[in-house]
Amino acid sequence: MKPPDPIYEGVLAGDARAIARAISIVENHDANSAQLIGRLYPRTGRAYVVGVTGAPGVGKSTLVDRLTTVVRRTGSSVGIIAVDPTSPFTGGAVLGDRVRMSAHAADEGVFIRSMATRGHLGGLAGATADAILVLDAAGKDFVIVETVGVGQAEVDIVSTADMSLVVFAPGAGDDVQAMKAGIMEIADVFVVNKADREGADHVVQTIGASLALKTVGPDDWRPPIVKTEATRDVGIDALWTEIERFRQRPPQARDDRRRTRESTRLRRLLSQRLVERVERELPPGEFDRLVEAVAGRELDPYAAVDRLMRGAQQS
Amino acid sequence: MKPPDPIYEGVLAGDARAIARAISIVENHDANSAQLIGRLYPRTGRAYVVGVTGAPGVGKSTLVDRLTTVVRRTGSSVGIIAVDPTSPFTGGAVLGDRVRMSAHAADEGVFIRSMATRGHLGGLAGATADAILVLDAAGKDFVIVETVGVGQAEVDIVSTADMSLVVFAPGAGDDVQAMKAGIMEIADVFVVNKADREGADHVVQTIGASLALKTVGPDDWRPPIVKTEATRDVGIDALWTEIERFRQRPPQARDDRRRTRESTRLRRLLSQRLVERVERELPPGEFDRLVEAVAGRELDPYAAVDRLMRGAQQS
Repeated sequence: MKPPDPIYEGVLAGDARAIARAISIVENHDANSAQLIGRLYPRTGRAYVVGVTGAPGVGKSTLVDRLTTVVRRTGSSVGIIAVDPTSPFTGGAVLGDRVRMSAHAADEGVFIRSMATRGHLGGLAGATADAILVLDAAGKDFVIVETVGVGQAEVDIVSTADMSLVVFAPGAGDDVQAMKAGIMEIADVFVVNKADREGADHVVQTIGASLALKTVGPDDWRPPIVKTEATRDVGIDALWTEIERFRQRPPQARDDRRRTRESTRLRRLLSQRLVERVERELPPGEFDRLVEAVAGRELDPYAAVDRLMRGAQQS
Repeated sequence: MKPPDPIYEGVLAGDARAIARAISIVENHDANSAQLIGRLYPRTGRAYVVGVTGAPGVGKSTLVDRLTTVVRRTGSSVGIIAVDPTSPFTGGAVLGDRVRMSAHAADEGVFIRSMATRGHLGGLAGATADAILVLDAAGKDFVIVETVGVGQAEVDIVSTADMSLVVFAPGAGDDVQAMKAGIMEIADVFVVNKADREGADHVVQTIGASLALKTVGPDDWRPPIVKTEATRDVGIDALWTEIERFRQRPPQARDDRRRTRESTRLRRLLSQRLVERVERELPPGEFDRLVEAVAGRELDPYAAVDRLMRGAQQS
């Protein structure tokens, strides 16, 4: 039934080149990506997934770099996914992959990958979820997903991790707006980076004030606020202590979150597949004709979708 | 066929309370929201939609406020939608609606509304698109959509406007990461706000450098970079000049963009409706059973979706 597959075998063996190939396959949504994930899936579920998000410029990459050093010191291996949303128009990164994490470049226990989004419907979140599975199957003890930005797509990705760090810094994330993007509620640990800068204590106070509004879950976890200076390696051990403290909680909360993650993922996959099927079954040019009719105000969008649905039903 | 509908009539008359009610209806996805949009739709297509986005803290709200003053001076009316992504968990805004735009609170030619996201599948973008239609039908000459954040969801919303302003500020958006979120390619005009601050010229140079990498469209529009100090009302007239210059271009580019907008919107609506139909037709509890099987590693996500698709096919 299942012929030998060098990529599959290589991922299970933790081979970096096979991991890179496998992630490319799921990122590009290649024809065999579903099959590859299907084979790897039974070997997943062991990695602990940490999401790291925050506004641009707060120092997330440096923080992840320093955190990786601490994790490596405990003997655990690390996979890092840097999510890099790119244009819906070109599908390409604007300034190319950043050169980063050079401290770990020679370390076989660390695998680093940048991900870009392709297309619209849940592409980035889906590809990221699959890449996490690849790193999980490859035996990485920790998978760190770093997202640039504070928008809904980033919140969606990070909120389904086993734990989420939300990073602020004075000047970059100290205003009320930054705290409104759904981010206060997904944070398991807050990090105030660049803590030597003026205004750091104000950021801590602002987070504390909005935490007072937060309803604490049934497991009574109150997100701590950790001050760091990642570039000088200050506060990283304290941050690691909080991560470990969160990770040692009873497994109930973690299992609930994983179930939510799978449920979101199934809905997203389902919606992609259903739309693909309808578009495949429509008469050629029909979708574009409906778009023209809507753009020309002959048909409203809801009426147009009704027609598409009827077409899908009859097939 | 169509009974008198006070909300529909009120929107067409530009009545603020009717507009507010109509937006609530589309935001909450009420049963009659599709019908309301269907009736309003033939009366839309006149408003010019301007998207404003950028990282938190760059001063977007103040900029929109000052811009509104300039637009009002020309005699045009303005509708403003402030998109406020909130938690996927609670569906509620964390810190409540901000008190803002007080300068225009008493002006009947200005309608201001904050939008929050509800649920996952394209909820925010869909509700925003419908709210734009309501303001368009209500006769607003300009609709300004301000999004907090720089993530994919915000890019999706703003990239379908008739024109997009991307706002930076020294310290908040002057790093390379901020420029990578697909934002360089959706900008029709760049604004460097807080231009009196140290580093403003560096931001202008960085934008200029990455613009050099940008492919110019067939209409040869090169996005200008405008320096503003919104709090002191500096540069707003220059910004308005650029907006008008963009708006006066031949209609071809604008029509293409509107077609793209309608196409994206149809796909999104279609995907929502298809998923709703499948979930409705599944045996009770079936979806949750599949989620459990996936969470328990008995079934991989792609195999689970195959089963859902087969269920949908048979119905």
